Amino acid sequence: MKQTVQQDDIVVLIDESLRKILVDTSGKTDKIKGIGVIDPKTLIGQCYGEKLTIGSKQFWLLVPSLQDKLQGLRRQAQIILPRDAAQIRMNCSIEPGQRVLEAGIGSGSLTIALASAVAPNGTIISYDIREEFIDHAMKNLKQAHLSQYVTTKIKDVTEGIDESDLDAVILDIPNPWAAVSHAWKALKVGGYLCAYSPLISQVEQTVHAIQQERFIECKTYENIQREMIVSKHGTRPSFEMLGHTGYVTFALKVTTL
Amino acid sequence: MKQTVQQDDIVVLIDESLRKILVDTSGKTDKIKGIGVIDPKTLIGQCYGEKLTIGSKQFWLLVPSLQDKLQGLRRQAQIILPRDAAQIRMNCSIEPGQRVLEAGIGSGSLTIALASAVAPNGTIISYDIREEFIDHAMKNLKQAHLSQYVTTKIKDVTEGIDESDLDAVILDIPNPWAAVSHAWKALKVGGYLCAYSPLISQVEQTVHAIQQERFIECKTYENIQREMIVSKHGTRPSFEMLGHTGYVTFALKVTTL
Amino acid sequence: MKQTVQQDDIVVLIDESLRKILVDTSGKTDKIKGIGVIDPKTLIGQCYGEKLTIGSKQFWLLVPSLQDKLQGLRRQAQIILPRDAAQIRMNCSIEPGQRVLEAGIGSGSLTIALASAVAPNGTIISYDIREEFIDHAMKNLKQAHLSQYVTTKIKDVTEGIDESDLDAVILDIPNPWAAVSHAWKALKVGGYLCAYSPLISQVEQTVHAIQQERFIECKTYENIQREMIVSKHGTRPSFEMLGHTGYVTFALKVTTL
Amino acid sequence: MKQTVQQDDIVVLIDESLRKILVDTSGKTDKIKGIGVIDPKTLIGQCYGEKLTIGSKQFWLLVPSLQDKLQGLRRQAQIILPRDAAQIRMNCSIEPGQRVLEAGIGSGSLTIALASAVAPNGTIISYDIREEFIDHAMKNLKQAHLSQYVTTKIKDVTEGIDESDLDAVILDIPNPWAAVSHAWKALKVGGYLCAYSPLISQVEQTVHAIQQERFIECKTYENIQREMIVSKHGTRPSFEMLGHTGYVTFALKVTTL
Repeated sequence: MKQTVQQDDIVVLIDESLRKILVDTSGKTDKIKGIGVIDPKTLIGQCYGEKLTIGSKQFWLLVPSLQDKLQGLRRQAQIILPRDAAQIRMNCSIEPGQRVLEAGIGSGSLTIALASAVAPNGTIISYDIREEFIDHAMKNLKQAHLSQYVTTKIKDVTEGIDESDLDAVILDIPNPWAAVSHAWKALKVGGYLCAYSPLISQVEQTVHAIQQERFIECKTYENIQREMIVSKHGTRPSFEMLGHTGYVTFALKVTTL
Repeated sequence: MKQTVQQDDIVVLIDESLRKILVDTSGKTDKIKGIGVIDPKTLIGQCYGEKLTIGSKQFWLLVPSLQDKLQGLRRQAQIILPRDAAQIRMNCSIEPGQRVLEAGIGSGSLTIALASAVAPNGTIISYDIREEFIDHAMKNLKQAHLSQYVTTKIKDVTEGIDESDLDAVILDIPNPWAAVSHAWKALKVGGYLCAYSPLISQVEQTVHAIQQERFIECKTYENIQREMIVSKHGTRPSFEMLGHTGYVTFALKVTTL
Repeated sequence: MKQTVQQDDIVVLIDESLRKILVDTSGKTDKIKGIGVIDPKTLIGQCYGEKLTIGSKQFWLLVPSLQDKLQGLRRQAQIILPRDAAQIRMNCSIEPGQRVLEAGIGSGSLTIALASAVAPNGTIISYDIREEFIDHAMKNLKQAHLSQYVTTKIKDVTEGIDESDLDAVILDIPNPWAAVSHAWKALKVGGYLCAYSPLISQVEQTVHAIQQERFIECKTYENIQREMIVSKHGTRPSFEMLGHTGYVTFALKVTTL
Repeated sequence: MKQTVQQDDIVVLIDESLRKILVDTSGKTDKIKGIGVIDPKTLIGQCYGEKLTIGSKQFWLLVPSLQDKLQGLRRQAQIILPRDAAQIRMNCSIEPGQRVLEAGIGSGSLTIALASAVAPNGTIISYDIREEFIDHAMKNLKQAHLSQYVTTKIKDVTEGIDESDLDAVILDIPNPWAAVSHAWKALKVGGYLCAYSPLISQVEQTVHAIQQERFIECKTYENIQREMIVSKHGTRPSFEMLGHTGYVTFALKVTTL
């Protein structure tokens, strides 16, 4: 059974030269580079994975991938990049069916990565103190077809966590150390704490807070990604490189008191 | 409802000093460091996440995490490390419900990472030309409680792929370029090809094969992970570091012919 | 005895806010940002390391450092960066009094680093097939006060080397492998060959050519430099980073035939 | 004119299979692997760069390179590696004829790199509070034929610097920040301060001390070196890699008060 384009979907169109064009079906009739004038709503109901004709041109219609969703999201805060989101999902053993708390929601990029990992029967609970960030992130999650896996709260995680028996708590806030003891209480035995911070001093304070609680396997990593350029001239690392994203700290809760 | 220890499970025990001990419940009565003499079968039926008494000591009983499963697996081939498995899952948009082909199975480490991402309703189809590798890997998958998501075939992927409409094809073989055109045919429109190779010449041949087919967004990455050591003396990167794992190449199939 | 500004020198001026301004004394009267209108020739004869008054402002007058010389040089080709030049000088054991051959001269940046290491009694012989590059580089060397240590030849190093008993041969050309056997003949016993190349295939061909000759200790390195940003907010690696410069291959000639 | 082996030299012998053997001519008659029984004193007076016969075998006799000297030195403290010494020499613009202060001397490895750069007419003044380190390092310097360029003092650099108008001050001590104001006073206008520290907190305190003085261009770097392995199977980065050496901070003194 073929999946069809739903209202407000972002879709991927591939033209005959294999160029990729993202179209937001919630937009108004407009001229889009590589397509021409189009009313995006006419795409609703079309079958993903099939060929369609717009004007005189033919296009392949694709579901955006997780990468497309992350690259396409409207940012209003520094986002956690896919390389770090990938490690967080792996090292925290995020799996379908889990209940995971995240604070703050930012633009929703990590939320998208987490929600796609706990689907179809898990939940992300996302705290943020800024209502406008929650609204913005939820729009991104809705377009990514993942909002049904996310519950939000306007709440400061450093003042406490309402939930208990959580599979993981992920902290992307300026002062993660202030939420470490709340996280310990809210985690199940066998649950993971994770904190993402760009600065060394944040890492140090967080690790010291973790050492005050009954966590084990506290480790901090930095993920460096290099692209290799393969061309007919030869192969070399890319000159373009992001020098730093952030440090990612993990710890495992292993007992109750 | 609490999950209980099943036959052949590997379980995690945490003692009162917060030391971690892995126990294979399929083993025989033996002296295990940190526990004493134990018949591992007596753990079957116990509740995960609870405290239990063995001899005069108390232990917390935990489900092994994905990391524990990967670290604990019996290796008979060089494995794909979690940092690379994490990126493969993310960049190939592996999600619950997908059908993904992997070749070869090796020790099953990538298979574990992929199976846990397509569960509870997806399938990994794994090809390998060496029956003993398949048998070995499936033992690891069974202990990781993931074997129900994996189908295996004694088959050389460079001679063709039986399946079609796949969400992703992941190649961890010495000559991935020889399977690129088969992968293109077997992928759905919008499906990802991935190849993992330690050598530059393998990357070059694979990228050139990819450029012969109707793939887009062909990119090659190297993932470098540095651990940061935070101690009371101060913070610094770890002196211990693995200099290289492998290069990971991705490409997206966007059309039929 | 104080050193004074010579004709055509590039000088460093530091204003009272500790801002740094480079002035080329061969230039014409002009308005220079941070100074005002100045005839640069009026700086000739002043003492380096002292304070001087220009208009109503006071400045410290400094000799440019090796770093200033390298940053200030007029480029007409991709230059070898200080991190790589530093390793070349160290690993080839470049010392005062040596005779070192370099090909090609490019903009003269490596030539400056090498000349400053063989001074005051050594010589750099620099080959290039493009006369205009030699002229340009020698202007840079003259301004760096190092031209007296450099001899140039319009010559293709892959067609042979006139000199013999050299302490080192440094190849920064697109096809270093084609000069490897010439370099072996021209080196003294105990002399170093070095090749700098951005591409893996260049490294491979050069290493294979080296293995055909009586060289030992053939090693290839990549130098990655990360800047750390220390601010009142905290410390982190710089986001800005150059992903790649080039691979540097070294080999030691240890015998005659 | 050929250079001959002097008393106490360490020499390099290359056998006919191009294997390299280091021999200390100050040693006693002994069996040396690859040579057989030899009285090292018989090598004294032989010509470097020539072939000689020992027993029934022929060897090439070579002067050790700067790399050999650094690798061969007897260590009693963690040494500064060539990659960092190379950057220190380059970024501090160390050149023949300069007067440079170093503290502490450690095993003398950085001292060797600095002394070879200021020779034949410059001086390294080296402070250390441990007389036995000075004695040990000076033995290494003597064997490297560089002791004539080095003056030592049993002195704590954080208590003051006797010299003035120095070209550079290099600090390799646990608390470099405590010597920053002394270094400022002792440097000439246009002179460089450098501090080498493994820990982030050391970098932070040093940078803050530098910001209290009239220095400019304060920058901190980390040098990461990867070896590339080129074999007949293909090319890849080495699996073996040192994850961290230290952070290197530089600053330039540009004015008197």
